[in-house]
Amino acid sequence: MADQKEEVKLLGIWASPFSRRIEMALKLKGIPYDYVEEILEHKSPLLLALNPIHKKVPVLVHNGKTVVESQVILEYIDETWKHNPILPQDPYERSKARFFAKLVDEQIIGVGFGAMAKADEKGREVLAEQTRELLMYLEKELVGKDFFGGKSVGFLDLVAGSMIPFCLERGWEGLGLEVVTEEKFPEYMRWVKNLEKVEFVKDCIPPREKHVEHMNYMVERIRSS
Amino acid sequence: MADQKEEVKLLGIWASPFSRRIEMALKLKGIPYDYVEEILEHKSPLLLALNPIHKKVPVLVHNGKTVVESQVILEYIDETWKHNPILPQDPYERSKARFFAKLVDEQIIGVGFGAMAKADEKGREVLAEQTRELLMYLEKELVGKDFFGGKSVGFLDLVAGSMIPFCLERGWEGLGLEVVTEEKFPEYMRWVKNLEKVEFVKDCIPPREKHVEHMNYMVERIRSS
Repeated sequence: MADQKEEVKLLGIWASPFSRRIEMALKLKGIPYDYVEEILEHKSPLLLALNPIHKKVPVLVHNGKTVVESQVILEYIDETWKHNPILPQDPYERSKARFFAKLVDEQIIGVGFGAMAKADEKGREVLAEQTRELLMYLEKELVGKDFFGGKSVGFLDLVAGSMIPFCLERGWEGLGLEVVTEEKFPEYMRWVKNLEKVEFVKDCIPPREKHVEHMNYMVERIRSS
Repeated sequence: MADQKEEVKLLGIWASPFSRRIEMALKLKGIPYDYVEEILEHKSPLLLALNPIHKKVPVLVHNGKTVVESQVILEYIDETWKHNPILPQDPYERSKARFFAKLVDEQIIGVGFGAMAKADEKGREVLAEQTRELLMYLEKELVGKDFFGGKSVGFLDLVAGSMIPFCLERGWEGLGLEVVTEEKFPEYMRWVKNLEKVEFVKDCIPPREKHVEHMNYMVERIRSS
């Protein structure tokens, strides 16, 4: 368990799925931490000093050591505090969790945001359909499980949960774009409901209305850039 | 140690740094494996069946289980066969290795290939300079060490080694583009020499002349696409 004297600090942004997943992980482990809210357009000198290469949140500082990149931070947390494991124990299951987490952060985010960024309805629908094709791989993984992690929230739940239902979907909602439906994605829908029942997940989900508004602002920013 | 009855099969392409690093890892661990050479322009039905999402090499098949994505495969190999560790043992050192490996595969490859793809000299030099800026982070990591892994080859050596000296540099060479020099990158240059002395690394480096020729072909392909 986390030592009382340990320093654990997280620099994050409330609407960032990459920050949200780290807070979820720290709460899943029951690790006390200080949270520092950063501002997207005006990053603090501390953030720039700690993450000079990427200049991005999240940044985890643990006893003076800095860890950046959200999936790297999740692995670090899991290896440092071994109770309540985040990754599966079996090497093959671990490889699957890592594979799909990469798919979320390297591909689903791209087409999912791409669907929002397109100003024309037809372009949006093309990318929405590509998003659905990728989400179908996740849908299949969820058959017969409460979470990707099985009976409890794990690595892929944190990565995909923070990014898809509690980030991308809110952007799609703001545009009236229907990407996932109960009919096509029953397992995914069931999984989202399961996630919403988990106390530490619920604690880390940005408030819906404010978030949809923020995503609308992000869409405008992308379209005008 | 690998059981004699175990099935370990690798689908790869000789010029792919992602395949090369997996072969290096298997040799580092001393794991016997069957190697299947794929053809870039004409992927086999087996490859398409095993990696339907990305349709790419490398693919590792271990006792009927399929693992894809080269960094995921490296972690899988390290967790399945625990002798001769690839990743450092300390969680913070592991996080640094993973961080820089992501930097190589997500950014250095982009600017490094970008420098080749630019048809005009000025555009090439702009991207070459961006590549140098990123490589300087690696240069600093190598001070006082034989390898990123310390006294022996580790995770970041496999990822960066397969990608930078034994892939990108050969593309730059074909174009007469000088990205790394002894003067600016003495640690990097020393590291490359150290790598070239390691038997299992040497065994996995594509033959120089054929490789430079292949990279020239790749550059033409990118420029005309």
